[in-house]
Amino acid sequence: MQREVLYHRPKNNYAYAYDEKTLHIRLRTKKGDVQSVHLIYGDPYNWIDGCWQIQKSEMTKSGSDEWFDYYVIEVSPEFRRLRYGFELMNENEKLVYTEKGFYEEAPRDDTSYYFCFPFLNKADVFRAPEWVKNTVWYQIFPERFANGNPANDPEGALAWGSAAPSKTNFFGGDFEGVIQHLDHLASLGINGIYFTPIFKAKSNHKYDTIDYFEIDPQFGTKETFRQLVDACHEKGIKVMLDAVFNHSGFYFEPFQDVLRNQENSQYKNWFHIREFPVITEPKPNYDTFAFEKNMPKLNTENPEVKEYLLKVARFWVEEFNIDGWRLDVANEVDHQFWREFRSTVKSVKPDAYILGEIWHDSMPWLQGDQFDAVMNYPFTTAALDFLAFDKITGSEFADKITNVLQSYPANVNEVAFNLLDSHDTPRVLTLAKENKERVRQLYTLMLSFPGTPCIYYGDEVGMTGEMDPGCRKCMEWDEEKQDRSLFEDIQKLITFRSDHSAFGNGGTLSFIKGSHTPGTLLYKKTSADETLLFAFNSESEPITLEEGLFDGFSNAVNLWTGENISPAHAVVNANDSLILKLS
Amino acid sequence: MQREVLYHRPKNNYAYAYDEKTLHIRLRTKKGDVQSVHLIYGDPYNWIDGCWQIQKSEMTKSGSDEWFDYYVIEVSPEFRRLRYGFELMNENEKLVYTEKGFYEEAPRDDTSYYFCFPFLNKADVFRAPEWVKNTVWYQIFPERFANGNPANDPEGALAWGSAAPSKTNFFGGDFEGVIQHLDHLASLGINGIYFTPIFKAKSNHKYDTIDYFEIDPQFGTKETFRQLVDACHEKGIKVMLDAVFNHSGFYFEPFQDVLRNQENSQYKNWFHIREFPVITEPKPNYDTFAFEKNMPKLNTENPEVKEYLLKVARFWVEEFNIDGWRLDVANEVDHQFWREFRSTVKSVKPDAYILGEIWHDSMPWLQGDQFDAVMNYPFTTAALDFLAFDKITGSEFADKITNVLQSYPANVNEVAFNLLDSHDTPRVLTLAKENKERVRQLYTLMLSFPGTPCIYYGDEVGMTGEMDPGCRKCMEWDEEKQDRSLFEDIQKLITFRSDHSAFGNGGTLSFIKGSHTPGTLLYKKTSADETLLFAFNSESEPITLEEGLFDGFSNAVNLWTGENISPAHAVVNANDSLILKLS
Repeated sequence: MQREVLYHRPKNNYAYAYDEKTLHIRLRTKKGDVQSVHLIYGDPYNWIDGCWQIQKSEMTKSGSDEWFDYYVIEVSPEFRRLRYGFELMNENEKLVYTEKGFYEEAPRDDTSYYFCFPFLNKADVFRAPEWVKNTVWYQIFPERFANGNPANDPEGALAWGSAAPSKTNFFGGDFEGVIQHLDHLASLGINGIYFTPIFKAKSNHKYDTIDYFEIDPQFGTKETFRQLVDACHEKGIKVMLDAVFNHSGFYFEPFQDVLRNQENSQYKNWFHIREFPVITEPKPNYDTFAFEKNMPKLNTENPEVKEYLLKVARFWVEEFNIDGWRLDVANEVDHQFWREFRSTVKSVKPDAYILGEIWHDSMPWLQGDQFDAVMNYPFTTAALDFLAFDKITGSEFADKITNVLQSYPANVNEVAFNLLDSHDTPRVLTLAKENKERVRQLYTLMLSFPGTPCIYYGDEVGMTGEMDPGCRKCMEWDEEKQDRSLFEDIQKLITFRSDHSAFGNGGTLSFIKGSHTPGTLLYKKTSADETLLFAFNSESEPITLEEGLFDGFSNAVNLWTGENISPAHAVVNANDSLILKLS
Repeated sequence: MQREVLYHRPKNNYAYAYDEKTLHIRLRTKKGDVQSVHLIYGDPYNWIDGCWQIQKSEMTKSGSDEWFDYYVIEVSPEFRRLRYGFELMNENEKLVYTEKGFYEEAPRDDTSYYFCFPFLNKADVFRAPEWVKNTVWYQIFPERFANGNPANDPEGALAWGSAAPSKTNFFGGDFEGVIQHLDHLASLGINGIYFTPIFKAKSNHKYDTIDYFEIDPQFGTKETFRQLVDACHEKGIKVMLDAVFNHSGFYFEPFQDVLRNQENSQYKNWFHIREFPVITEPKPNYDTFAFEKNMPKLNTENPEVKEYLLKVARFWVEEFNIDGWRLDVANEVDHQFWREFRSTVKSVKPDAYILGEIWHDSMPWLQGDQFDAVMNYPFTTAALDFLAFDKITGSEFADKITNVLQSYPANVNEVAFNLLDSHDTPRVLTLAKENKERVRQLYTLMLSFPGTPCIYYGDEVGMTGEMDPGCRKCMEWDEEKQDRSLFEDIQKLITFRSDHSAFGNGGTLSFIKGSHTPGTLLYKKTSADETLLFAFNSESEPITLEEGLFDGFSNAVNLWTGENISPAHAVVNANDSLILKLS
């Protein structure tokens, strides 16, 4: 057995509290190297005659990727304390793996050899809001969704959709536009809206905040925003706003004060200024987002700045009853700030959702003390590589996703914010070279997945667009120009998510590997009351599913058509997918 | 190259901020599998013509253990942001290892493949007090150190040293006794005292607190405690107290109130009571420390309890100017509590030391938001296994210690609380089967090591004792019965620690492996101005050091004797050690 490849370290994705009573313990082994794994465990204080009292339970293989197999077990220690090790078997040997190394037999004379989950304290359990697991999000870039009130249009606004979006042009999208089109969203079936920034700012994207306590006048007033939130809530739609706390805009008054008063400014410590006088050209001599002089980085370690931003965080929840905050450039702000942010927001609204924008491995922010979720770009990349770019096979997709899922606790995966595109990427239809069948497959994949999926405005009616500003076109409201068939498919997939317990987070995901063609992806999702089989075909020829997939079931119903399918004739067409309910 | 064995994950011991400007990046590889490693890195926003701008620097091999080699590099990114990967070479191949997998060449079209240290925020840097690096601790169990005032003896106290220590007997040790013997400690050279609990309690060990705001009357009054702290500070000795916050004692008034008033007690949520009425026999129906009914676990998630305990934490620092808290059973209390504990204590005294009692892997508590250090029992175990029990070879000791050192950031290792024994273990002399030469070796090892060492009271004069209560004998004050030679050796080792920059934390440790006998341990410690060579021999025959060890140096001085040693005649006697200053 290859000992160097074994990996376990407690208090992250390898050992965590799933809830107040349950621990999940996972182990990583070299792929194919181990035949069975048992957890050896006990309460550290449970001794009889100098001998530590242990139990032994078999762990389940929960997945594999390119290099590793993963094992998992759920345990509920009576006194919430646990010491444990792993007994591994293969044809050649038996091995006990502990924190202190390897043994032939589990030592019973001391618990300090073992791995330790010292105490399951409720306060440390990662807990995201329950409602998020059942939410389908819709991302709105407010300047481009709908112009409901021309009176608040910014100066020089162009007629709706009359020009290609540029870095600087405006089309007058606003809150009244959103309110007027809520029926479109309700009909699609989404139940959460993520708005990119709405506070007073200079640009069309509003990521350069001028005033965090004011609504940008081109979108409306606080009163229209209140109407918008209330209208959403009436339809059962949650509202999430974008908190741009890493940096302010150039015209944020404290930064302007620094530019005017330089070293004498009372705000000079609100930013990271390297020397005075502050200059913006040829290069800013203060920290910025990227190298963007119009986005000076805020000093979130300064107690005044912290107080100010936490007041913002509290204000929009308390006064307008918003349901969540999406945190821009979240990983460049200090952890300490986010801990205080979390306790502030949750003290006002315990079930508010806190979503960080992080493109990389995010375990350090998902330990229960900071975020509820991050934007799941690793899912995006794998899904697009498989179904939009034909860069990887179905089996490679399964490996990559298994790796992502194994990198986080199960309760984190259930609220991961899955997306196919956003205002920061080209649109999915464009990425898929306008192949609508592939886009339909991608939505089938995303909407059936664990996590909380998000649809970028307009994707549901077949909008296209290159990297921003191209992806920020005006929403197409002319039904003639909308792809209503795609809309209806996504609508149906959303219904599946709520009607079928195994479709979304209720179902345990297991990939099925085998001898199928490279363009095939197969997975089952199983809940207490149903089993669904998902089959994707990215090849140009139909594939027939192996009959073995139906072993143990006598019936298979096509979820889309309601038709019974005979195992011998389960065909997935080229560029299509099949969802079968097995019974 | 064996890819499955490579390991790196940011924001723990593998990638961390060493200080406000410096990141340490580490990589683990399969032992002997790789010939060189380069870090490939850059600022994520530094692009020219669609090509990410990178640098490449060679990493240093910082150590090896049984299974792995470890590489490290220090980088100071100008804008405090970093994306990075590893380029590995051996005779067969070149491989680039990133967060997203393996490549033949470093990709330049996207930074999202790479590992990410998003921003070096000052607020997140792990920072322990500077003074701890230069502190040698002395642990006092107050009931047994010295009886300075018979007037405050508890009822039934026995004459000093007149009986073996039992679970229940008393000998009248007190603060006046400590004050009277401070010269002994100052003469030994220690500059920190760790007191096991001193608050009002029932037992002789005082881990069963009755009142956290009162000094136990058998030790003195608040006034004597103030005199004690002041007297210590006058001699440059820091004072650390024991915070027993995981559980209270049975006679803690809130618990007594619960026993009296049961469900009607205003304190019923101060503990974890499973059902009413509360019973203590045959088994307590409330959570306890271990299964000890006299130690009910405190509900540190209850805001009232939190407020009470944080007031305690603040009170003794603010009113008595203590310098540190040692946290009993620290890992069974919630992380959330410890975060608030840290900010409370540090707000009163920024350079107070916070030391957790954790016997296992402790990375989750050492991220900068909770503790400054933990009690380094893995060091204890390895040192004893090598020099007290002959259970492992010198080379195995080096492997185990390398593994421990690599498990934590360098700035954590510098303040690790190293110990050979304590009130919770048999005394080191007893463990070493009363072999004083071995004990001398163990002190040489511990006092030359990175971290902050601690001497258990009485060990310095050769006291013995089995597992508690045996290890809690009355301090031997009769100089005739003290081992003055051991005292003088430890005294001298402490002087080395302050007089030689490479002896303690100032020196970089590197183990020397080779063909020497199993009982040999060799390491060098190197600072900017000196190199020290340490050689331990646990065999029963003398060993002669290989001349190659002196390559690059022309001179070697025995630190103990001041004599010049010729490389051809560098002999380490049986059960002895040699410290050579090379130049």
